Amino acid sequence: MDDAGQLKRRIDTCLRRLVDEEEAELLRVSGELAPLCAQLRISLTRGKRLRAAFLYWGWRAAGQPDCESVVKAAAAMELVHAAACTHDDIIDDSRLRHGVPTAHAAFAEGRAGGACDTAAGAPHGERQERSAALAMLLGDLLMGYAGQVFATCGLPGAYVARTASLWSSLLRETVAGEFLEVLRTGGVVPKVAESLEVARYKTAKYTVERPLHMGATLGGASPRGLDAFTGYGMPLGEAFQLRDDLLGVFGDPAETGKSNLDDLRDKKPTALLAVTASLLPAGPARQLHEVLGKPALDESDAALVRELMEDSGARQRIEDMIQERIAQARAALDSVALPSEARSALRALAGSATDRSL
Amino acid sequence: MDDAGQLKRRIDTCLRRLVDEEEAELLRVSGELAPLCAQLRISLTRGKRLRAAFLYWGWRAAGQPDCESVVKAAAAMELVHAAACTHDDIIDDSRLRHGVPTAHAAFAEGRAGGACDTAAGAPHGERQERSAALAMLLGDLLMGYAGQVFATCGLPGAYVARTASLWSSLLRETVAGEFLEVLRTGGVVPKVAESLEVARYKTAKYTVERPLHMGATLGGASPRGLDAFTGYGMPLGEAFQLRDDLLGVFGDPAETGKSNLDDLRDKKPTALLAVTASLLPAGPARQLHEVLGKPALDESDAALVRELMEDSGARQRIEDMIQERIAQARAALDSVALPSEARSALRALAGSATDRSL
Repeated sequence: MDDAGQLKRRIDTCLRRLVDEEEAELLRVSGELAPLCAQLRISLTRGKRLRAAFLYWGWRAAGQPDCESVVKAAAAMELVHAAACTHDDIIDDSRLRHGVPTAHAAFAEGRAGGACDTAAGAPHGERQERSAALAMLLGDLLMGYAGQVFATCGLPGAYVARTASLWSSLLRETVAGEFLEVLRTGGVVPKVAESLEVARYKTAKYTVERPLHMGATLGGASPRGLDAFTGYGMPLGEAFQLRDDLLGVFGDPAETGKSNLDDLRDKKPTALLAVTASLLPAGPARQLHEVLGKPALDESDAALVRELMEDSGARQRIEDMIQERIAQARAALDSVALPSEARSALRALAGSATDRSL
Repeated sequence: MDDAGQLKRRIDTCLRRLVDEEEAELLRVSGELAPLCAQLRISLTRGKRLRAAFLYWGWRAAGQPDCESVVKAAAAMELVHAAACTHDDIIDDSRLRHGVPTAHAAFAEGRAGGACDTAAGAPHGERQERSAALAMLLGDLLMGYAGQVFATCGLPGAYVARTASLWSSLLRETVAGEFLEVLRTGGVVPKVAESLEVARYKTAKYTVERPLHMGATLGGASPRGLDAFTGYGMPLGEAFQLRDDLLGVFGDPAETGKSNLDDLRDKKPTALLAVTASLLPAGPARQLHEVLGKPALDESDAALVRELMEDSGARQRIEDMIQERIAQARAALDSVALPSEARSALRALAGSATDRSL
């Protein structure tokens, strides 16, 4: 197993231990909480652990040695992410993530791994609302664990205290990005710059820049020393979002584990959509707007949109934008002095934005 | 102004300062976040600040002096509460709190204090979902602030670190209580013991016991020293919930600032409902079940339920249960040695459960 695989395994172990402990605590409250425990476990089982990796390598980049405490601090990033995903899936009504039903979908179908009988027997609309409520509570719980795991990671209190304002920033920026996206979803097709603005807050800062800042600050980097991580993190984070936009439309659900219709159905204000609209001549542009305006967009509608995205050159343009941004991120990395292990890990992480199954 | 009024004013000031700072940060991200800022302000403007008061007096009860840092730590409890209320109002679809529209209601009506035009123009169902999404994000933001305000309250790091496992408990118990309530809402009328179980987790621990534990632990009380606060806090917290149950059905909306139909419409599994069902003879019991089963329970239905609750003696029984619990709480207080100022403040706080407009 390579280094990246080993780090992922350590994060997984840390999260599994938390789930085991919390499950015992929750079941001590009531056996009726079994469905909550089941979804807690599922929500923490999958994922690439990218955010944890960026925190970890931010710490190492600051010259600090490997230790279990920083792995625990890094695991907290994955708890934030699991919370955000759980709430995000309710907002988008995404039914599948990593190939398994999302929490609210599982609660609605009584497949939550325990007796949710009352919910399963209720009328459809009511069941949807109830399952969204249960999933919202799961997200709240995950977010609370994040703060706790971080606060008790085992690093000296003075190290942890240094990151207080970064936590505020991470939280504010992520919520702000999500809020803007909800406001703009389903409305007019955005300009490319607007889409990238949302991507910067919702993904770039949250996934790459802030976790790196968090790790580096834990490790004692000065506020000025964080600039290099911004130069690397922001373009790379945008590249991740652009890759995600492509996978959301062109991805194979069997590989990505999620629907490739949801983004189009919701008329998500992605850069892919914005670039497509900007490149299409009047006739096909009208066609695009008609299809995206449909209340129940189906597979053949999606096929048409994909064709328009290909033919207009938008898909290729997004691929180019991804490559430009990865190159920018790597150049930023090359311009600073870093421990060699950290440098090569961060170079490799930049490459993962080219993966087809992010 | 009395001491309680002064403490409330200091908490209010602390929260207003946070809102001012955060509003500036959010608007720096985008002017489109104005509606989020407006709801953030509203969600932190009202309230009795009970949870903050319990944390504060827990600290004072541990022999610590008044200081601004503990007021800030106490304000964090109100942020947790504002977050929980925001999410709770979505779950219950409560439209009014403290006499003003709840966050999701305001977002839906485009009355959020800024341009939510896209949402206001969308079809009804879609608008509801979008407004719930925006309010969920507001709640997430509030919860994040809570952790931050607490972590940076200004008390020594070692004091703050002592409360880590209490935060976990507070969070776990609150989510567990809410989860159980959602599972049981709208189902069969619960047994009295089951209703009180939910009340213990959702209200008693969260509103009284844990804030007291938090304050006392910050102040250096030993884990064993917390038992007295449990003896006081649990019955008092149940009394608060029972009072809230009464106000939810018998309260005057002009005074309580919230609907007195919502609990009945949702068939909330309150102790009031459980006691009523247990006291009614077969005929009126059938009548109760029929009315509560109505999909659109109206004012005249509610009047009938109120009559059944009066005539069965259930309303009086709940009043008696409140008085018993307040007496229990005060007895627990009398059985321990406490600084006199803390003792009299906690006695007075126990009395507030008798208020008709909690």
